[in-house]
Amino acid sequence: MEFCYELEMKVRDYECDLQGIVNNANYQHYIEHTRHEFLLSTGISFAKLHEEGIDAVVARLEMAFKTPLKSGDSFVSKLAVKKDRFKYIFYQNIYRLPDMKLVIKSEVTTVTVINGTLGECPVFDEIFKPYIKE
Amino acid sequence: MEFCYELEMKVRDYECDLQGIVNNANYQHYIEHTRHEFLLSTGISFAKLHEEGIDAVVARLEMAFKTPLKSGDSFVSKLAVKKDRFKYIFYQNIYRLPDMKLVIKSEVTTVTVINGTLGECPVFDEIFKPYIKE
Amino acid sequence: MEFCYELEMKVRDYECDLQGIVNNANYQHYIEHTRHEFLLSTGISFAKLHEEGIDAVVARLEMAFKTPLKSGDSFVSKLAVKKDRFKYIFYQNIYRLPDMKLVIKSEVTTVTVINGTLGECPVFDEIFKPYIKE
Amino acid sequence: MEFCYELEMKVRDYECDLQGIVNNANYQHYIEHTRHEFLLSTGISFAKLHEEGIDAVVARLEMAFKTPLKSGDSFVSKLAVKKDRFKYIFYQNIYRLPDMKLVIKSEVTTVTVINGTLGECPVFDEIFKPYIKE
Repeated sequence: MEFCYELEMKVRDYECDLQGIVNNANYQHYIEHTRHEFLLSTGISFAKLHEEGIDAVVARLEMAFKTPLKSGDSFVSKLAVKKDRFKYIFYQNIYRLPDMKLVIKSEVTTVTVINGTLGECPVFDEIFKPYIKE
Repeated sequence: MEFCYELEMKVRDYECDLQGIVNNANYQHYIEHTRHEFLLSTGISFAKLHEEGIDAVVARLEMAFKTPLKSGDSFVSKLAVKKDRFKYIFYQNIYRLPDMKLVIKSEVTTVTVINGTLGECPVFDEIFKPYIKE
Repeated sequence: MEFCYELEMKVRDYECDLQGIVNNANYQHYIEHTRHEFLLSTGISFAKLHEEGIDAVVARLEMAFKTPLKSGDSFVSKLAVKKDRFKYIFYQNIYRLPDMKLVIKSEVTTVTVINGTLGECPVFDEIFKPYIKE
Repeated sequence: MEFCYELEMKVRDYECDLQGIVNNANYQHYIEHTRHEFLLSTGISFAKLHEEGIDAVVARLEMAFKTPLKSGDSFVSKLAVKKDRFKYIFYQNIYRLPDMKLVIKSEVTTVTVINGTLGECPVFDEIFKPYIKE
């Protein structure tokens, strides 16, 4: 898979649970943050979109958990995007640094809600065009 | 101290960190939730207030951590409120159940921001009147 | 689907994000908490298991987000469990109260790691037997 | 105040609540992460300490909230440390970037629990010596 965006982060201890590893829900936080930073890198703010009545909403999520991250670990979160009719599908993997071991593999399907109605979002279409995988 | 509101809750495992105890930031969540449920019990929704341009904002927080909560613990979160000029001060303690051991003691000072400006909030004055400690 | 366990909860305002709805990662928290409470209802503590070297680990997660929960919403989180060789698959749906509108539908595949090694867990086999859907 | 350590971070959208600003509990996360990264910078891992039976525990916290952070904001979290008998007091301020507006001012009192007993921790004494403010 060819990714079009990547973001480095580091585990914060409060993200670890009593098993001593990053609690699974935090991977959802990591990949959400990665999508929003990807958006920002194209000049679009998720918060501003919301204020304009445009909400990108996750409709479906699949995650496979491969290697747990621990206190002190750094990682890179990578993203690719594909269009499927009016949906955008983000392929988002996280790799531990520096050994690049696969941490999670995920697929996130998003739809656009404009003033409360599901719809096509020309803003996204234009912005994502250079990144879309066919 | 005489409290005017209380709420029972139970530790959720994801709130515990790698020390095996509830991460301190979650006590801030617990007492915020208690304040909002107290508001609701008087007929006021924090979310609706926000939509109407009224934001109750925490200006100052003091917490003393006495006994850590662990996986499986239940607890009761108690609240008293006092007015100090245009501020409301909430005294919020958490006790472990069933032995009523003190978990945290806290003092939360809130102010009201109406359409972006700090000010008195007649809504709160009226609603809190029966609960205010002199 | 016939569920064998259910747990009522209520949205806490800190779980809502800038879109004014429950942030998606919190649904993962809700369903984790539901699984752990289900375990407890059978006499098993997730935290104690961890101390004994037995870790139930999520290997795979699928979630479909249907109706977002908002500030003030109550909901019921329901669970069914199936065995698939050495894996347990939990089917976990969340419904808004009181209208029982479907909030999320999820499938969580867990494996058991005993002292660091993937394996069958006789404890789970015995405990889940009465609940297992064929 | 002269700070001895600082860490730059950026708001993640999931840290914002329905008021559209960073939820207060996250500032506790930010300053905890800053202390742990400060520890790491001196060669000490909070997680490893815990495994060795040494737990740094927050006994008391005071925070004043000055300017809320929003989606897209970057900030720098600064730390100074003072010894007061067997306690360490961390002075931790957060400033918004790039205008260096004060976001929060906090004071965090920590004690050391060694194998379950409150006590002096020679490890910390030695490590913090160069940083301690008299």
